[in-house]
Amino acid sequence: MPSNSSPPLHPTREREKALMSNSPSPIRVLVWGENRHEKIEPHVAEIYPDGMHTTIAAGISENLGDRAKVSTTTLDEPEHGLTEEVLADTDVLVWWGHAAHGEVADEVVDRVHQHVLSGMGLIVLHSAHWSKIFGKLMGTTCTLRWRSEQDRELVWTVDATHPITEGVPNPIIIDQQEMYGETFDIPAPDELIFISSFSGGEVFRSGCTFRRGNGKIFFFSPGDQDYPVYHHKDVRRVIANGVAWAVNDRPRRIPTLLRYDTNDFFNGHGYTGPIAD
Amino acid sequence: MPSNSSPPLHPTREREKALMSNSPSPIRVLVWGENRHEKIEPHVAEIYPDGMHTTIAAGISENLGDRAKVSTTTLDEPEHGLTEEVLADTDVLVWWGHAAHGEVADEVVDRVHQHVLSGMGLIVLHSAHWSKIFGKLMGTTCTLRWRSEQDRELVWTVDATHPITEGVPNPIIIDQQEMYGETFDIPAPDELIFISSFSGGEVFRSGCTFRRGNGKIFFFSPGDQDYPVYHHKDVRRVIANGVAWAVNDRPRRIPTLLRYDTNDFFNGHGYTGPIAD
Amino acid sequence: MPSNSSPPLHPTREREKALMSNSPSPIRVLVWGENRHEKIEPHVAEIYPDGMHTTIAAGISENLGDRAKVSTTTLDEPEHGLTEEVLADTDVLVWWGHAAHGEVADEVVDRVHQHVLSGMGLIVLHSAHWSKIFGKLMGTTCTLRWRSEQDRELVWTVDATHPITEGVPNPIIIDQQEMYGETFDIPAPDELIFISSFSGGEVFRSGCTFRRGNGKIFFFSPGDQDYPVYHHKDVRRVIANGVAWAVNDRPRRIPTLLRYDTNDFFNGHGYTGPIAD
Amino acid sequence: MPSNSSPPLHPTREREKALMSNSPSPIRVLVWGENRHEKIEPHVAEIYPDGMHTTIAAGISENLGDRAKVSTTTLDEPEHGLTEEVLADTDVLVWWGHAAHGEVADEVVDRVHQHVLSGMGLIVLHSAHWSKIFGKLMGTTCTLRWRSEQDRELVWTVDATHPITEGVPNPIIIDQQEMYGETFDIPAPDELIFISSFSGGEVFRSGCTFRRGNGKIFFFSPGDQDYPVYHHKDVRRVIANGVAWAVNDRPRRIPTLLRYDTNDFFNGHGYTGPIAD
Repeated sequence: MPSNSSPPLHPTREREKALMSNSPSPIRVLVWGENRHEKIEPHVAEIYPDGMHTTIAAGISENLGDRAKVSTTTLDEPEHGLTEEVLADTDVLVWWGHAAHGEVADEVVDRVHQHVLSGMGLIVLHSAHWSKIFGKLMGTTCTLRWRSEQDRELVWTVDATHPITEGVPNPIIIDQQEMYGETFDIPAPDELIFISSFSGGEVFRSGCTFRRGNGKIFFFSPGDQDYPVYHHKDVRRVIANGVAWAVNDRPRRIPTLLRYDTNDFFNGHGYTGPIAD
Repeated sequence: MPSNSSPPLHPTREREKALMSNSPSPIRVLVWGENRHEKIEPHVAEIYPDGMHTTIAAGISENLGDRAKVSTTTLDEPEHGLTEEVLADTDVLVWWGHAAHGEVADEVVDRVHQHVLSGMGLIVLHSAHWSKIFGKLMGTTCTLRWRSEQDRELVWTVDATHPITEGVPNPIIIDQQEMYGETFDIPAPDELIFISSFSGGEVFRSGCTFRRGNGKIFFFSPGDQDYPVYHHKDVRRVIANGVAWAVNDRPRRIPTLLRYDTNDFFNGHGYTGPIAD
Repeated sequence: MPSNSSPPLHPTREREKALMSNSPSPIRVLVWGENRHEKIEPHVAEIYPDGMHTTIAAGISENLGDRAKVSTTTLDEPEHGLTEEVLADTDVLVWWGHAAHGEVADEVVDRVHQHVLSGMGLIVLHSAHWSKIFGKLMGTTCTLRWRSEQDRELVWTVDATHPITEGVPNPIIIDQQEMYGETFDIPAPDELIFISSFSGGEVFRSGCTFRRGNGKIFFFSPGDQDYPVYHHKDVRRVIANGVAWAVNDRPRRIPTLLRYDTNDFFNGHGYTGPIAD
Repeated sequence: MPSNSSPPLHPTREREKALMSNSPSPIRVLVWGENRHEKIEPHVAEIYPDGMHTTIAAGISENLGDRAKVSTTTLDEPEHGLTEEVLADTDVLVWWGHAAHGEVADEVVDRVHQHVLSGMGLIVLHSAHWSKIFGKLMGTTCTLRWRSEQDRELVWTVDATHPITEGVPNPIIIDQQEMYGETFDIPAPDELIFISSFSGGEVFRSGCTFRRGNGKIFFFSPGDQDYPVYHHKDVRRVIANGVAWAVNDRPRRIPTLLRYDTNDFFNGHGYTGPIAD
């Protein structure tokens, strides 16, 4: 089998230094927003006058305070605002998209994918279930049932020991929401944290975690452009909890093939180590 | 959210009819082989004179008898032998590749991917951990440690209730093998069935199942071109067990977005159903 | 560490012989019913005139036909009808209890526990979530939320590849039911198959599988003494599917401590084998 | 269904107050040791002159410093040192036992069980796989293969994102150890973190997490009375990581049956709440 050496990612030296020094630097959070509905549809602009990404970012800051340094970027920035330099300086990326999944360039998706596998956290919100990056990480269609008729959503806690469920009532009550229902075509999640119900009687695995490579992924379905869900106190708390959970403090590193020679079998010593690491 | 209707796959009418008639038709198994080492390297040709795919196919027939109808195809066939018609008539696809993963056309990989998500079983053998199709289904790098120095592999059963472990000793002893070691960069498997050890002390999750869409996937790591592993009685039994396990008898169908309207909330009746189904 | 040899269970020779002969004998199913409500409460007797266990048994026979040989027994039989001989001749035990969990003798619970760990399948229905045997297998309180006010239950399929979901609509609609809601205090199930919603907006993991020792366990929550749920066609089908799934055809055997000596390290040969097996 | 109100556990007020005040108090760790081999067998006393529990406790303090307040207790104390008061003041309990599992009183086991389900963390070490408390939480026999012939153990990391694996090499090399091998009769763990191999070629799921009720459980198999494993730097680090991971900062609370009435169906408001909470 041939060796396959990936180019080294930009080192995150600043963060590593801070970790060594025992006064951890804040979590560097980047909220990515598609930012199209807000510009085109007046009723969305009314709910989210500064853009959905800004509201989502504010909810994270509100909950994490000094523990996080939150910034935002959008689809229309060059390279969608997701250059190699930006991603190398991001601990957790939060993703909201809906109408323009197809406009996200494949090479940017590949770059984000590499960073997640290397250890960057990823929070996938609502309609981003159908984003290219989530599909690429899951390997499935990520399709579901849906209806947008002002359903009421109840978000029930299934795993009360999980840090992501801390500080929110059981259930969270969202008075107006789009309905997302099963069957949700995802791999069985590593952890099932929340299950939602809707006025029509549908259910949905609304809070799920996945580990892929060195990266931690949290999918959380509440949130929509047509309803003021990202102003909801409990929804904001869950997203902030997810950000704190998704941090991987170890040096960013893509998993690679490692060739191990040994002339000294059976004792676990004497490995000559990977060819390309 | 817009509706997204996938083109219908070729119906597998013959099989459905057989199922209705209560005398199940045999499992239609297709073994796909890269078939390159066998042609170029004399020592491989000596071990597998008719090609590795033929040996693998023989092992399945040996164990399943009339329960399976096994055929083979290879990389150098037009469309790698994996046309829409062929896949529509395949219940379980067995995949072995190694040196030429990069030569498999992306459109063929996409086609196989759609069929797996629609319900076709997939058995992924050994070095196919790095095939395009496995990577696309897993979403990770699927990298690992390795060494080819005639290690001895022991394959231990972890889940003694699983049908894939039926009829094999614990451990299976393979006298000569390539070493595959952790960390194996895959999603946590749905079921961990076998763990292997190697002479150098390495360990590997050598038997794993995954469900993706409507498809069942079994990864089994024993097997290599340099060693006669596919002549090994127990290895053949496990692969045959995997084939029998991976069958999905329901009509093949890709998961799709389904829009559900209802004017009759709260009672579960009155759905107007999916737009595109 | 001392060796711990369990007494051998009664061999299930009849079944093993049948398996060898390639014409599998029917699955031996035993439905255990508490049979108290039916005797004391007229409205329950009206719904289940021959006892709930009889109705449950009829639903299994209706679906599995010749593939199963179904019998019943109840709490008030000597040893609750669960002697060593009876259990040794049972492939899958179906358990319904509610008002009299405390009357089930601990020694009978221990006996059933040993048989499940040795390979007997177990189907746990509705209020049996709080039975001694389920609690002993789970290790948790198995508590939940509940309300009995004629809720409507919808049972949604989460895993469409699972044999237990075959042949039922998505969702199953149950017009009158007791409400069971999260948080359900169980270990994370090996497979989550169904999630239910109720009129009050509650959700529940209503179909879950667990493997314990060599035994396969299926918990299915629909079913109650106050509503005619076990007459429901789809509920009957799911229970029958669960019975077929839970069979373990290998010889019944309790996991034991095994001491492995070897004078021939590193090659996997030469084990002198377990002291007590 | 009858309501079942458990007696309230002793509140952990001191800790809760500290959490509120934003300067978290140290983790209160209690190391429980059987302390028999050390007293009876000179070669064990030589390795662990102050008792194994003391060595284990020192390894935790060495790694967690001011973050933990570590104390110890042993089997021969009244109530095995595990009174209600002691457990109510313990955030994480570490358990080592071997020769005298049978001497641990059932009522003490029940008390520890209630505290784990209520949120106390539990670290289960090596031969404690066969302790009453671990068996009661798992529901299985927890048996395995074993041999004590000075095997070399290699502990490989399977999940490199998990905090329990932080700061240790891959593999950890333990020069002398008892062999523990599969099949290990446990429920499929929630997270599989480490897999070990041994000189004889055996493998073992040596690092596993489980959530039961509100409690987090970490099983870690390295460690034995006959070898100086608890003096091993990496083993000590893993145990300390496990302690930090197992903390549940929320108020301790046993899951209970909750009866939910509602006169206001369909809107998620108006619950009258649990009868007994």
